Amino acid sequence: MSQFINARDALVTEAIDGTLRSAGDRLARLDGYPHIRVVLRTDWDKSRVALISGGGSGHEPSHAGFVGQGMLTAAVCGDVFASPSVDAVLAAILSVTGKAGCLLIVKNYTGDRLNFGLAAERARAYGHDVSMVVVDDDVALPDLPQARGVAGTLFVHKIAGALAEDGADLGTVTAAAEKAIAGTGSIGMSLDTCTVPGSPKQNRISEGKAELGLGIHGEPGIEQVSFDGAAAAMAMVADRLAPVMGDGPHVALLNNLGGTTPLEMAVLAEELVRSRIGGQIAMMIGPAPLMTSLDMQGFSVSVLPLDEATKAALCAPVAPLAWPSCAQVGDVRVLPLPDGLTPIQPMPSQNDRMANFLISCCEALIGAEADLNELDAHSGDGDTGSTLATAARALIDARDRLPLADLTQLYRAIGLELSQTMGGSSGVLLAIFFAAAGDASANGLGTIGALEAGLERVQQVGGAGPGDRTMIDALLPALKALPQGARAASRAAREGADATAGLTRAGAGRATYIAADQLAGHVDPGAEAVARLFEHIAAISASA
Amino acid sequence: MSQFINARDALVTEAIDGTLRSAGDRLARLDGYPHIRVVLRTDWDKSRVALISGGGSGHEPSHAGFVGQGMLTAAVCGDVFASPSVDAVLAAILSVTGKAGCLLIVKNYTGDRLNFGLAAERARAYGHDVSMVVVDDDVALPDLPQARGVAGTLFVHKIAGALAEDGADLGTVTAAAEKAIAGTGSIGMSLDTCTVPGSPKQNRISEGKAELGLGIHGEPGIEQVSFDGAAAAMAMVADRLAPVMGDGPHVALLNNLGGTTPLEMAVLAEELVRSRIGGQIAMMIGPAPLMTSLDMQGFSVSVLPLDEATKAALCAPVAPLAWPSCAQVGDVRVLPLPDGLTPIQPMPSQNDRMANFLISCCEALIGAEADLNELDAHSGDGDTGSTLATAARALIDARDRLPLADLTQLYRAIGLELSQTMGGSSGVLLAIFFAAAGDASANGLGTIGALEAGLERVQQVGGAGPGDRTMIDALLPALKALPQGARAASRAAREGADATAGLTRAGAGRATYIAADQLAGHVDPGAEAVARLFEHIAAISASA
Repeated sequence: MSQFINARDALVTEAIDGTLRSAGDRLARLDGYPHIRVVLRTDWDKSRVALISGGGSGHEPSHAGFVGQGMLTAAVCGDVFASPSVDAVLAAILSVTGKAGCLLIVKNYTGDRLNFGLAAERARAYGHDVSMVVVDDDVALPDLPQARGVAGTLFVHKIAGALAEDGADLGTVTAAAEKAIAGTGSIGMSLDTCTVPGSPKQNRISEGKAELGLGIHGEPGIEQVSFDGAAAAMAMVADRLAPVMGDGPHVALLNNLGGTTPLEMAVLAEELVRSRIGGQIAMMIGPAPLMTSLDMQGFSVSVLPLDEATKAALCAPVAPLAWPSCAQVGDVRVLPLPDGLTPIQPMPSQNDRMANFLISCCEALIGAEADLNELDAHSGDGDTGSTLATAARALIDARDRLPLADLTQLYRAIGLELSQTMGGSSGVLLAIFFAAAGDASANGLGTIGALEAGLERVQQVGGAGPGDRTMIDALLPALKALPQGARAASRAAREGADATAGLTRAGAGRATYIAADQLAGHVDPGAEAVARLFEHIAAISASA
Repeated sequence: MSQFINARDALVTEAIDGTLRSAGDRLARLDGYPHIRVVLRTDWDKSRVALISGGGSGHEPSHAGFVGQGMLTAAVCGDVFASPSVDAVLAAILSVTGKAGCLLIVKNYTGDRLNFGLAAERARAYGHDVSMVVVDDDVALPDLPQARGVAGTLFVHKIAGALAEDGADLGTVTAAAEKAIAGTGSIGMSLDTCTVPGSPKQNRISEGKAELGLGIHGEPGIEQVSFDGAAAAMAMVADRLAPVMGDGPHVALLNNLGGTTPLEMAVLAEELVRSRIGGQIAMMIGPAPLMTSLDMQGFSVSVLPLDEATKAALCAPVAPLAWPSCAQVGDVRVLPLPDGLTPIQPMPSQNDRMANFLISCCEALIGAEADLNELDAHSGDGDTGSTLATAARALIDARDRLPLADLTQLYRAIGLELSQTMGGSSGVLLAIFFAAAGDASANGLGTIGALEAGLERVQQVGGAGPGDRTMIDALLPALKALPQGARAASRAAREGADATAGLTRAGAGRATYIAADQLAGHVDPGAEAVARLFEHIAAISASA
C-alpha cells in the first residue's frame, strides 16, 4: 500500500466523513452507507431548482467539494472511477427535489448516463420534474461520436448553480446548462498516469514523453508526444482548443489533474496566457485542482465563450471553498523598486588613531588565520580563519573610504563592508552586529552599550545564546567586563573561549551536526577569534 | 525533464507571473526580476503594520498565495528551497512599511534568519520600525536546539494578519505572533520524497515504509517507520503531538505536503478526528495544501491551543483564496434516507390476452438467443442473445405479479423487472424505455405515443440516434410504421436491422471500439432482436 488510506472498500465513505468533519455544518450525508453515498446541503429548503451531479470518486474536489450555496445541491459518490448506483442517485433526487424540480448534471460515461437516467425515470414516476444534461467537453477525439465529460463540467455546475440560486425555473437552468455544454471544449495532458488505490500503477508514459488528450480515469491519451517543457506542452493544448473556439473572448478553466505542483500550475497559467489562444482568454478559473484524476501529474484546459450572462454566472459568489473564483486575465502589475536598495555610502573622514587601531586589529585577525582554521577543522569546514582574514584584509583596503571620525557611521560602514566582502553566516552575523551597534549609537548609546545592542541582535537573528559554543561565549563576557578596562575584557574573553572546549554540544551553526566526542577539548574558532582580538586590544592599550 | 516547467532558472519568475495573471488585480510584483521576486498587495496604503514573509520557493501556496487583505502584505520568494537575498527582503520592507512598522515572519532556517535579519538591520538604518519573529514549530526532534519552521507558520500569518488588519500596533502584532509560535507544534509524515526541479529524485523511502518527522525540503525524517495505513500513520503523528499539547481545545491545521490526493487527505482528516488527540481538536484548517514541499506525498499536522482571541483571528475573513477557512470540528451530520427507494410494487391484475402476448414475445426472444449471440460476437462480447433471453425468462416467471390489465402500470412494472433482472447497459436502457413509456401513458398518450416517448428517452440517456448501429435503427422505423399495422412495422424493423450491416462505424456502445472491416456485413444484434420481435408480433397478429 502506497497511499494514505485504510481498507479500500471503506475509502470513499471515510473520505466523505473526513470532508464533512472539516466542512463545518454546511454539509451532511444521507444515512445510506456503504452503498448510498450522497453529500448534500444542510441549508436547502427545496424552494428552487436542485442541482445534482456525481459519478465515480477519485476526481475530488468534484463533486462533493462543490456542494453548497450557488453550486450543487447534492453529489452522488461512486467508488473510485465507478458510477454510483441507480438507488444512490434516486436517493439524492428524492432528498433534495421539490416542486421546482431538479437538474442532473452527468459526465458522458455510459455507466453514469444509464444510472442517472434510470434514477431520473424512477423519480419521475413519483411526479418529480427531473431534467438531465450530459457533459461531453473533451475535444481530444474530435470525431468520436461520444466525447467524454471532463473538467468543463465545472462550468456547468457553476453556471447552472448561479441561475438556480437566483430562482430560475428548471427549463431556464437546463437550457443554460445545455448552452454551456455546447460551448465548452477541454483537453488534458499528463506526464504520468494515476495510481488507482489497491492497484499497481501502470507506468505507461516513459520519461521524456507526455500524453495528450487523456481521460480522467487513466485512459490512454490520443497520442504520446515528446515532452519539451511547459511552453511546448501548452502550445500543443492550445492547438487542439483553437479550432473549437470561435472569435471573441473566452473564459479558461485551468485544472490540476491531481499531482502537478502549484509551482508547475502557475507556470502553465503563464504559458496559457502566452499561447496562441492567450489573447482570447479574458478570464481564468484556477489554476486549481477541480476535476482531478487521483494523483495524475497533468493538467487540463477548458474553454467557453464569454458573454455577459456567462461572466455574471461564473463570477457569482458561492459557498464551496473548492471553487477558486474567476479572475480577469491581464498584464502582470509591476511596481517600481523602492529607493534605498543601494546603501548610502558613508562620507569618508580622517582619524589616525582610529585607523591605526582598526588596522592593527585586522592584522591580529590575519595573524590568527592558520590557528583558527585548524580549530575550525574540528567543528566546521576549516575556514573560519580564512573567512575572517579575508574580511580583515578588505577592511584594511577600505580604510580610505571609512568615516573614521564618526563612530556611529563607522559601525554602519564596517557592517556594510562585511556584508559585501565576508562570506558565510558569520559574515552576515558580523554585519548585523555592526549595523545594530550603529543604530544603537545613533540612538545615543555609548560604545559598550552600542556593542551590547549589536550582540543582542546577533543572538536574536542567529538564534544562539551563551553556552551554544559560538563567538558569543567570548564576546558576551568581554563586553560585560569592558567597563573594567581592556585587560578585564581580554581575560573574560579568554575564559569564555577556553570554556567552549568543554561544551560538547553546539547550539547553533554547523557544529550542531558534530558528535560530542569530536568537539570535546577543542575551543570554538569564533570564540577563539574574539579572545585573540581582545587580547590584542589589551596589549595595545597597555602599550599606549 | 519530468515537470511542467521551462528553464529552471526562470521557474520562479514564470510561476509568480502566472500566479499574478490569475489573481485579478489584487496583487503586483516589484520590478526586480530576476533577483528580487517580491509579491505584494495592490490595495496597501501603509496605514497599518505590514506583514512580510517568504523564503525558498517550492512551498506554494506559501508564501505568495497568502498575500492579501487579512494576511501577508508582501512575500519574498527565493529560488526553490533557497533563501531570498538580503536585497530582496529589503526591497519588500521598504516597499510596504510605513509609520506603523512591519513584522517579518521567518521560518527557522539559517539562511532565512540571516538574510531577513540583515535586511531588517538595513531597513532600521532608514528609520523603519522592523520586528522579526522566527517560527520553529517542528516537534520532530524535541531536543534539537533549533527546531525547523514548517506549516505552523500559517497560524502566525493568519493570527498576525487579523490583528494587523484590525489596526493593532507593531508590539501587539509581534507579541501575538510570538504567542502563536510558542504554542504551535507540527510534525510531518511522507510516503515519498519530493522531486526538486532539475535534480534526479532521491528514492529514499522504500515501498511499505514512511518517514516520520521529515522537513519541507526533502530532509530525511527522524525515522523510517513501517507504513500500515492511514489510521496507523495518523496515530504515530498524534503520539508525537500529544506531549506538546496542554489540556483544552486546540485548532489543527492539516497540511498536504503536495502530492497527496484530496481523497487521501480527507481520509487523514477523518483519522485525525478519530485519533487520541481528536477529542481536543475543536477546529480544523484544511485539509489543504498550505506549506507544501513540491510534490511530496505526505502531510503534516500542526496544533495550537484555541482561546477566544485565537479563534477570532483564525476565523476572520481574508482575501487570499489559498486560505481554506477554519471550521468547527464535530460529528458528521447524517440525514435519513428518503422514502421511495423501494419501488412500489404494482398491484397484479389478470388479462389472459396480454399474458399470452407477452409470453409469446418472450419466447420468441428466447428462441433467438443463439443467433443473437453469434451476431454479437462480431461487435461485442457475444452475449446479447443470452442477456435478452435471461430477461425474457424472468418476465415469464414474473407474469403473476404483473398488472396485466393496466397498460400504464404494466409498462412501469416491466421496466422495474428489467432493471432488476437484466444486466448490462441494455438492461438499463430497456428499463428506461418501459418506465418512460409508462410515464407517457400516465400522461394520456396512447400505445404508439407512449412507446415513442420511451424511445426518445432511451436516445437521450443512451446518447445514440438513428444510424449509430443500435436497436434504435430497427425500433424507430418500426414505431413509425406501427400506425399502418403490425406487418408494416415488422417490414420497417427488418429493413432497419438489415441496414445496420452497412453501417461500419458504431455511434454508441461497445461496438464503437470495433474496426469498420470487422463490423461490415453483420447486422447489429440489438436491431436484429427488435426485428425478430416485430416479425413475431406480425405473425401472431396475422394468425389472430
